[in-house]
Amino acid sequence: MRVISTVSEFQSALDHARLSKTVGLVPTMGYLHEGHGSLIQRANSENDFVAVTVFVNPLQFGVNEDFSTYPRDLDRDVELAKHSGADIVFAPTINEMYPNYPEALPTKVSVSKLSEVLDGKSRPGHFDGVATVVAKLFAMAGKVSAYFGEKDFQQLAIIRQLASDLSFPVKVIGCKTIREADGLAASSRNVRLTQDNRRAALVLYKALQLGKELVESGENNSITVTRAMESLIKGEVRAELDYATCVDPKTLLVPDVIRNDVQLLVAAKFSDVRLIDNLKANFPEPINRAGGGVQNNDVVKADSLRLERG
Amino acid sequence: MRVISTVSEFQSALDHARLSKTVGLVPTMGYLHEGHGSLIQRANSENDFVAVTVFVNPLQFGVNEDFSTYPRDLDRDVELAKHSGADIVFAPTINEMYPNYPEALPTKVSVSKLSEVLDGKSRPGHFDGVATVVAKLFAMAGKVSAYFGEKDFQQLAIIRQLASDLSFPVKVIGCKTIREADGLAASSRNVRLTQDNRRAALVLYKALQLGKELVESGENNSITVTRAMESLIKGEVRAELDYATCVDPKTLLVPDVIRNDVQLLVAAKFSDVRLIDNLKANFPEPINRAGGGVQNNDVVKADSLRLERG
Repeated sequence: MRVISTVSEFQSALDHARLSKTVGLVPTMGYLHEGHGSLIQRANSENDFVAVTVFVNPLQFGVNEDFSTYPRDLDRDVELAKHSGADIVFAPTINEMYPNYPEALPTKVSVSKLSEVLDGKSRPGHFDGVATVVAKLFAMAGKVSAYFGEKDFQQLAIIRQLASDLSFPVKVIGCKTIREADGLAASSRNVRLTQDNRRAALVLYKALQLGKELVESGENNSITVTRAMESLIKGEVRAELDYATCVDPKTLLVPDVIRNDVQLLVAAKFSDVRLIDNLKANFPEPINRAGGGVQNNDVVKADSLRLERG
Repeated sequence: MRVISTVSEFQSALDHARLSKTVGLVPTMGYLHEGHGSLIQRANSENDFVAVTVFVNPLQFGVNEDFSTYPRDLDRDVELAKHSGADIVFAPTINEMYPNYPEALPTKVSVSKLSEVLDGKSRPGHFDGVATVVAKLFAMAGKVSAYFGEKDFQQLAIIRQLASDLSFPVKVIGCKTIREADGLAASSRNVRLTQDNRRAALVLYKALQLGKELVESGENNSITVTRAMESLIKGEVRAELDYATCVDPKTLLVPDVIRNDVQLLVAAKFSDVRLIDNLKANFPEPINRAGGGVQNNDVVKADSLRLERG
């Protein structure tokens, strides 16, 4: 397996591979874990040639965020990538990607609407940084299948939109979140949790499971679902809640009344480590879709709850 | 020669051509004239396969601009492209490019600094529209040499920056402005000029020539050069001056003191037709570069002129 550090070598390697092979791309920020391993394995099972990129993208970190402390270990990443079936690892320096760094790249890619909610609110500019670096990786990669984890649910939605809007010849494939034995979503940031915070962080998955139970048992008021998840997380003193919400999986907007499957998303900080997680909840088929009774009922419930709040 | 209207056919055609051929791309807004013809001919002379795109991009027109009246004639364009050596013409509908049009594409590409001056000031959002559509065309085209006219000098600078920043495998090639017999720069908009305005529009090229003479005879004060061009254009009653300026050809910023070659740029409206043009001016080599005298002199001249104005 080859480790490449320049854009031109990376482009040549993929162009050459594509002459006779299908190419899978797994963009990462390194410090690979089982979740990345599963992406690489899947890319390997679906393509003849797999490229893993390792680049901690400064553009997607805010000034007070953890760019400098984000964990890095290229040797370990190369081993894990190789073991999981990668053919090349592209690990550019910051200056190879952004020649005038720390001066900003003049070109910026942004995706409206999807970038404006959830993490987009909490981390201004974050998704512009993601969209710009992913557009750059897609531009250099050309025709590939690209694998991203569903753990970063909003990021995945934004990347799908970007690839479609700009007509990149890239098939964007979302892959199931990998969890540790107790349910904590695999994340490079997990290693930065203290032992106590590691234990406390489980509350995120528990809140998602609670929200899922509520929705799947027919609770159709998004405020009720949200409040239940929020209060569970607030009950954990080590968690500093950012948001707990349920949204339409396509638009990422909160429905007043849940009528279809929703995505539950949570974000919280444990000391200086910010974690996110999400889970799909299937809203049960109504027994009588044609009847207006259920819908009218829903609206009344939602309205009365809103009044209750005010 | 084939005329293609879908993105997927366009991508397939270029992928297929690239198996054995080099590919030249000539993006246009149609209503092709001699200037486009020269781009296609050059692409044809430097590549084995040439694709011309014809798309009047609504994103790059402001609400009060001439999107609806911009001239269109696809049959004529196809003939001219064929005659000039094109192998395919890609002429998508608006909805093929922007599926939810007139709803905005969520993804936007923007190039800071270069987009903020000159036409960027006069036409807010214009260059974001240009950058977005060009990024989309580059994303679908893949590895090509892309030909653009120097007539749109600022656009060319922005596209070069975009291609470099996002690592598109595209070689951006700027081509000499083609002029009508009397010097008017070829433009699709020229057909919309009345006979009187057509004659009046010549003032743009005359102003550029005047500026060039000044710079090339050693005038190093950019305000003097600018004022001379401005007053020539203002002397033409049919011209509504937007700007006349001289800038650094890389940064597009106005130097106080001219020390190197500059690009002279002008923009003016003739009734509802807005025209732009530009010309390079070579600043003469100083007789004694090592001596500080010339430079000090320059500064004094610039300063006194500024005082005179205030």
